[in-house]
Amino acid sequence: MFFRQKQMAYHAKPEKPDPNFAKMLQEPLGGQWGEISVMMTYLFQGWNCRGPQKYKDMIMDIGTEEIGHVEMLATMIARLLETSPVETQEGAAQNSLVGAIMGGARVEDAIMAGMNPQHVIVAGSGSRPVDSSGNLWNAGFMTASGNLLADFRFNVTAESQGRLQVARLYNLTNDTGVRDMLSFLIARDTMHQNQWLAAIRELEEDGLEMTPCPSNFPQELEKSEVAYQFLNHSEGTESEQGRWAQGPAPDGKGTFTYIDRPPAYTEDEGNLNPVDPRTYGTPPAPVPPAAAE
Amino acid sequence: MFFRQKQMAYHAKPEKPDPNFAKMLQEPLGGQWGEISVMMTYLFQGWNCRGPQKYKDMIMDIGTEEIGHVEMLATMIARLLETSPVETQEGAAQNSLVGAIMGGARVEDAIMAGMNPQHVIVAGSGSRPVDSSGNLWNAGFMTASGNLLADFRFNVTAESQGRLQVARLYNLTNDTGVRDMLSFLIARDTMHQNQWLAAIRELEEDGLEMTPCPSNFPQELEKSEVAYQFLNHSEGTESEQGRWAQGPAPDGKGTFTYIDRPPAYTEDEGNLNPVDPRTYGTPPAPVPPAAAE
Amino acid sequence: MFFRQKQMAYHAKPEKPDPNFAKMLQEPLGGQWGEISVMMTYLFQGWNCRGPQKYKDMIMDIGTEEIGHVEMLATMIARLLETSPVETQEGAAQNSLVGAIMGGARVEDAIMAGMNPQHVIVAGSGSRPVDSSGNLWNAGFMTASGNLLADFRFNVTAESQGRLQVARLYNLTNDTGVRDMLSFLIARDTMHQNQWLAAIRELEEDGLEMTPCPSNFPQELEKSEVAYQFLNHSEGTESEQGRWAQGPAPDGKGTFTYIDRPPAYTEDEGNLNPVDPRTYGTPPAPVPPAAAE
Amino acid sequence: MFFRQKQMAYHAKPEKPDPNFAKMLQEPLGGQWGEISVMMTYLFQGWNCRGPQKYKDMIMDIGTEEIGHVEMLATMIARLLETSPVETQEGAAQNSLVGAIMGGARVEDAIMAGMNPQHVIVAGSGSRPVDSSGNLWNAGFMTASGNLLADFRFNVTAESQGRLQVARLYNLTNDTGVRDMLSFLIARDTMHQNQWLAAIRELEEDGLEMTPCPSNFPQELEKSEVAYQFLNHSEGTESEQGRWAQGPAPDGKGTFTYIDRPPAYTEDEGNLNPVDPRTYGTPPAPVPPAAAE
Amino acid sequence: MFFRQKQMAYHAKPEKPDPNFAKMLQEPLGGQWGEISVMMTYLFQGWNCRGPQKYKDMIMDIGTEEIGHVEMLATMIARLLETSPVETQEGAAQNSLVGAIMGGARVEDAIMAGMNPQHVIVAGSGSRPVDSSGNLWNAGFMTASGNLLADFRFNVTAESQGRLQVARLYNLTNDTGVRDMLSFLIARDTMHQNQWLAAIRELEEDGLEMTPCPSNFPQELEKSEVAYQFLNHSEGTESEQGRWAQGPAPDGKGTFTYIDRPPAYTEDEGNLNPVDPRTYGTPPAPVPPAAAE
Amino acid sequence: MFFRQKQMAYHAKPEKPDPNFAKMLQEPLGGQWGEISVMMTYLFQGWNCRGPQKYKDMIMDIGTEEIGHVEMLATMIARLLETSPVETQEGAAQNSLVGAIMGGARVEDAIMAGMNPQHVIVAGSGSRPVDSSGNLWNAGFMTASGNLLADFRFNVTAESQGRLQVARLYNLTNDTGVRDMLSFLIARDTMHQNQWLAAIRELEEDGLEMTPCPSNFPQELEKSEVAYQFLNHSEGTESEQGRWAQGPAPDGKGTFTYIDRPPAYTEDEGNLNPVDPRTYGTPPAPVPPAAAE
Repeated sequence: MFFRQKQMAYHAKPEKPDPNFAKMLQEPLGGQWGEISVMMTYLFQGWNCRGPQKYKDMIMDIGTEEIGHVEMLATMIARLLETSPVETQEGAAQNSLVGAIMGGARVEDAIMAGMNPQHVIVAGSGSRPVDSSGNLWNAGFMTASGNLLADFRFNVTAESQGRLQVARLYNLTNDTGVRDMLSFLIARDTMHQNQWLAAIRELEEDGLEMTPCPSNFPQELEKSEVAYQFLNHSEGTESEQGRWAQGPAPDGKGTFTYIDRPPAYTEDEGNLNPVDPRTYGTPPAPVPPAAAE
Repeated sequence: MFFRQKQMAYHAKPEKPDPNFAKMLQEPLGGQWGEISVMMTYLFQGWNCRGPQKYKDMIMDIGTEEIGHVEMLATMIARLLETSPVETQEGAAQNSLVGAIMGGARVEDAIMAGMNPQHVIVAGSGSRPVDSSGNLWNAGFMTASGNLLADFRFNVTAESQGRLQVARLYNLTNDTGVRDMLSFLIARDTMHQNQWLAAIRELEEDGLEMTPCPSNFPQELEKSEVAYQFLNHSEGTESEQGRWAQGPAPDGKGTFTYIDRPPAYTEDEGNLNPVDPRTYGTPPAPVPPAAAE
Repeated sequence: MFFRQKQMAYHAKPEKPDPNFAKMLQEPLGGQWGEISVMMTYLFQGWNCRGPQKYKDMIMDIGTEEIGHVEMLATMIARLLETSPVETQEGAAQNSLVGAIMGGARVEDAIMAGMNPQHVIVAGSGSRPVDSSGNLWNAGFMTASGNLLADFRFNVTAESQGRLQVARLYNLTNDTGVRDMLSFLIARDTMHQNQWLAAIRELEEDGLEMTPCPSNFPQELEKSEVAYQFLNHSEGTESEQGRWAQGPAPDGKGTFTYIDRPPAYTEDEGNLNPVDPRTYGTPPAPVPPAAAE
Repeated sequence: MFFRQKQMAYHAKPEKPDPNFAKMLQEPLGGQWGEISVMMTYLFQGWNCRGPQKYKDMIMDIGTEEIGHVEMLATMIARLLETSPVETQEGAAQNSLVGAIMGGARVEDAIMAGMNPQHVIVAGSGSRPVDSSGNLWNAGFMTASGNLLADFRFNVTAESQGRLQVARLYNLTNDTGVRDMLSFLIARDTMHQNQWLAAIRELEEDGLEMTPCPSNFPQELEKSEVAYQFLNHSEGTESEQGRWAQGPAPDGKGTFTYIDRPPAYTEDEGNLNPVDPRTYGTPPAPVPPAAAE
Repeated sequence: MFFRQKQMAYHAKPEKPDPNFAKMLQEPLGGQWGEISVMMTYLFQGWNCRGPQKYKDMIMDIGTEEIGHVEMLATMIARLLETSPVETQEGAAQNSLVGAIMGGARVEDAIMAGMNPQHVIVAGSGSRPVDSSGNLWNAGFMTASGNLLADFRFNVTAESQGRLQVARLYNLTNDTGVRDMLSFLIARDTMHQNQWLAAIRELEEDGLEMTPCPSNFPQELEKSEVAYQFLNHSEGTESEQGRWAQGPAPDGKGTFTYIDRPPAYTEDEGNLNPVDPRTYGTPPAPVPPAAAE
Repeated sequence: MFFRQKQMAYHAKPEKPDPNFAKMLQEPLGGQWGEISVMMTYLFQGWNCRGPQKYKDMIMDIGTEEIGHVEMLATMIARLLETSPVETQEGAAQNSLVGAIMGGARVEDAIMAGMNPQHVIVAGSGSRPVDSSGNLWNAGFMTASGNLLADFRFNVTAESQGRLQVARLYNLTNDTGVRDMLSFLIARDTMHQNQWLAAIRELEEDGLEMTPCPSNFPQELEKSEVAYQFLNHSEGTESEQGRWAQGPAPDGKGTFTYIDRPPAYTEDEGNLNPVDPRTYGTPPAPVPPAAAE
């Protein structure tokens, strides 16, 4: 059960409107690696958690925090879409919306032609659950598998991709208000990357999970001779130069070997049998017409 | 540029047809964490790579290998959908397709009512680029950011989620031919988890990237006081018991602290200004009708 | 900013596992009219609200409540997917998962062949943000326009479609634990339908919005002669028998008339001009090959 | 069965081409609340209708009318994409397409850089079944439940959101031809809002359906004590000030009460049981490796 | 502008309900190659047509006919979902829905567990704009390019894939009413394949378009040495045995040659330059931290 | 099994960066008719092929070739996104990214405001598996049915739509490097159109498949009287003027006739029976409340 405090987690006030940057800021809100994705990911991981209580509580804490991050970004975007100072100067007699978007011949207007049109037409100057290209958020952007190591690895990824995108956005604006908020999100992503890396160590120390994940699948059942081979599939062998091609594997259970020209482990060329003619697939040789009776 | 060898990477021959398991095996083929996802992920990461050559070559090697894994799964599924022994016995006079799918009152038929109908209607007993629920594969399942640490973390995740799903599927069939192929895929996932973990270490040793990712964003620009705080957002403090809440952070740059009741860092309640009445959003107080001239 | 209380809003405990009903219960969780849809709808309507404070606060209250409804359904589904009593009896020696899903010849197994395979393969016996057909939740299921009357009408709809679906599900199970939770959700939907209907009246009484929505578009600018005409587009005139075809319109601003055979209001047949041959569209007559220089 | 008359329902002729506005006008054609959505919604509601004939006929009338609205918008967009007067002046020697879209340094060209590129590349200066952001229309934008009250509420919503968007678009263009067509669509939306509101009253007067919808679910089966409670989930009580928090409910069957701090109606914290180790979810304590035999 | 006749184009009455076949019949209604796809394809091709009038009129005729095919399938599916004879016998005292879907131990019930749950929960025994796997119809299933040859080729394809699927479905049912309707659809697909093939010939005879499409791109601008080469990309040369590898090409403008081992036409290995460090992509060598000022 | 050669199939080097054209060039990479679509289409058609070996090998050859085309386009787009000459001149002190995208008042900047923001934010100056509007590639863009004639018709379509789009793009750029690569792709599309047309003839000559496809469905089972009728569904008879309305049909099995006003072949108006009241659909007359016991 959830409750709401009126103050936001942090400031979300731009110096001035900027509809083009509002479009870009949709990426960390509703994009593949945005705040809706991590909010939904952590909430579902928590609700589905069947491990120790400390993990469930920790996951729910951060999932709940992320609802507040969605709130900050949604608010910031709505403010970036508010009436601009330029329009204010022009007075009531002028049709500022037409001016702003369809423009005369002003360069400012041309830049605004690149804004997300749904910010005006659909949301009336509000934010939307979409990415910076306008793609609708969907649940294929999130993950909750029931295996905490597999999921925490996703979470480290999400905090890395997310921090990367926010850092790029920091460089695409000069607005000090926007940058202030981004510096908060970047710092929280620093924390969260560290948090999930620490949680992975905790899982290993608690003896619950390790590499190769899932560690509870009996490893003697896997095809062991290919479990530590690097298979070169290109001309040339630059790929031999990394620690993925020689020496002990990170899981401590095998040693990498480099196979320059990997063999096919089968003579099977994947040819299929002909099927029931009543499916009307193309047969290897002509057959008479047929239908089920 | 790519070339094809006729033999598959490994055997893909089931003991007998099983249309229901064919449906389930679509998950590692066309699901969020299936082979199409890793094939496309690695190919795009490789094509977009602007780092050292050894990384690009390594990424392309595994991307090319994965095309062959898609091939094996596609072939296995097509074979699981071939005419069953039961039908063979029944002879030509009987409408086996109707029998198999719409059934009389045989339990076998009822089980087949749970198969993916598109395997027959759309693909004519072939595999499809969909998951086990029938969702079409889409590019929201893959990732290529240009930052190799962020991406290698995704790759470790993909190999973990993928190995987890294949291990579950191993337990859902008794077919020795299917299990043989799965044991190969599980072993390759063991390799690939290790490979990406090794590649992450190599990146750090090469001085190219580290935690917090992206490490080249100047950390003095982030809101440093919240960069190592765990913010409790629930009643109770079970979440204090892990190493994410105290002690040194994994990046070696900070020390975790636990904030039992996190403050709002702003008085801002997120209230918005009224907007141009010509967007017809609901205003705080009645306004006269208006349209642009 | 949001906080979490550990207790759920209401009980979510089934009498016994039922993987097939777990699939169906995904509809009110992650379907078009499920709880994720209303949660996201209300949160975005609240964050984008530029009207009076009492509306914003009310919207945020119910948005926050809905997060808790998602929680209840997610938990219930996870419990419906837990080890069944049947399996428990069979003892450890038997492979219950294979038995349960791939089955021998037991009818129970056949029914389970209809379960959502991703509940096992992807989520490890957890819930997913999908509908009962397995479609991923996406933001095209929600709405926030900035106009509160347009949005409250959506909200009444969502609570109606949602209550309808839950009522149907009530009739598809005999599990008293499931029914108990559904009776709570149905009651809340009763409240929420009433709430949004009341809010619509409040909007009208506050003079902020009325029919036709948006009421602030100057009605003299619309093509007034067709603003209250019912246009019959079928043979026969059964459609004349309702109050939509005669008498005063609900907005009090016009009177319905019934047009048995509506005229075209234009001679325009929609024919287009030929375009630049360099787009290679089919022209009305042959043209010579051309490319841009 | 359907037939076509060559004349369109109304004029669809712009004064001059405008590729940027063509992009925006895709919203009422192929967006969530566009004409394709209402066309498909009404047709499916009509085909699935099991109620009185007058309703089915009325629904089919408006569904058929909407096909013509799709036609008008498709035609208008195609005309907005035709060769512009600017290009005509420049003569045949000049590569107007390159000029128009990739531009030299003219501001007009820059504005056109914001057009939907698929209008040229994919459709050859034709309209597309997409929204103003380029998202493909999908069936998640429509609704047909079999319950006419639930569906008519959706229809009122669709006509409200649609009229809102068209009114906004009216303010984003100065083209008198475009505005003329929009004034027709706005008037029809006025009619259709009134029509569905009248149909809702008719349903109630016919005794077929009322609030809470579906009214045929026996209300004694719902958890009645929460059926008329407003549950405050925020700090502060601004939400108490509306008629949703006190007085008689609109359905005439209950009285609103305001609960400042809503209780949890259960002690259940949503904790789950451990599951079969062969799903490799993270357990509460270490378990030995296991696989199905 | 469109009008509706009450009679359907053809009978759509099954002998008896069959919810499982109702699920399968969604494929030709709302699947990739279903009637909604061709309806929308032809309507948009017609509305965007800039060629001779006879083509536009012909395209619109068939587009309008297809609306009626959607109607027939929607009606058939709704009837396949009506109360079954089994239920009728059981009398009012028994809960037939629970029996039918959740079942006791009857095989009939198990088969029904494979039905599309949204047919009950969402549509109340009505059809839906989805395919047989439950995927929502989307506009990525249709095509309208402005080039009639490219589009008519799509149309031949759609009528071929569609006829193929309906022929398969014919074999999956014994219901004479269903088969009667399918025999009508199959015959119309025979007509429509022939129609589009005839239209392709007409286009060529009218001198408007031919192979290679678009024929108005000046062929001297293409890289002519590879325009008629078959490039073998596999081991072995089975692919040399067809008429695609030797002899005159169908367009009459070139002669096929077979290249056993195709060369790379460039030395370029696709390596990229390093980018601006402020995008935080991984560089070829370590660089100092940087951000935009 | 697949292997990679380092050289690309052809040059992919632009004269200079052009982020706006990079956006447009996504269409032939990740659009409905782009190279990913044909790559996936041909690979799945090959893997599912149950016909003669020469077809399977030929399909796999071209499928493998297309992986290389994806590579070329991905590389070209990444290079079009590299640091522009303008920026180079401006020196290190200036924030070129802000300048380039958010701009001051330079027209060049305004044009760049129309670029795909995900090229920077998500991919760090790399290509993406999306179309020119930013829609994610999905498997609804590809086809593999098991029937080679139906599929080869799709393939001819794909090569036609693809060549059309690339020809349009040729006219939208002046960059000689880009045009050089496009001229290669256009030539390969010429080959591939011819190849699939030749393969269709081969199929017919081999006696495996012909019109109407699938030819193995016994044609006496279709409703023969409508199998060669053109049904006029519009006012007027322009559609009578083509060879689709008279003379022999292309399949050589029938003669076209033109039906000016097609009859309904049934009296059935599509009315449905009332359903079980426990689904809460709207009934034809009031019924008492009911629920399953």
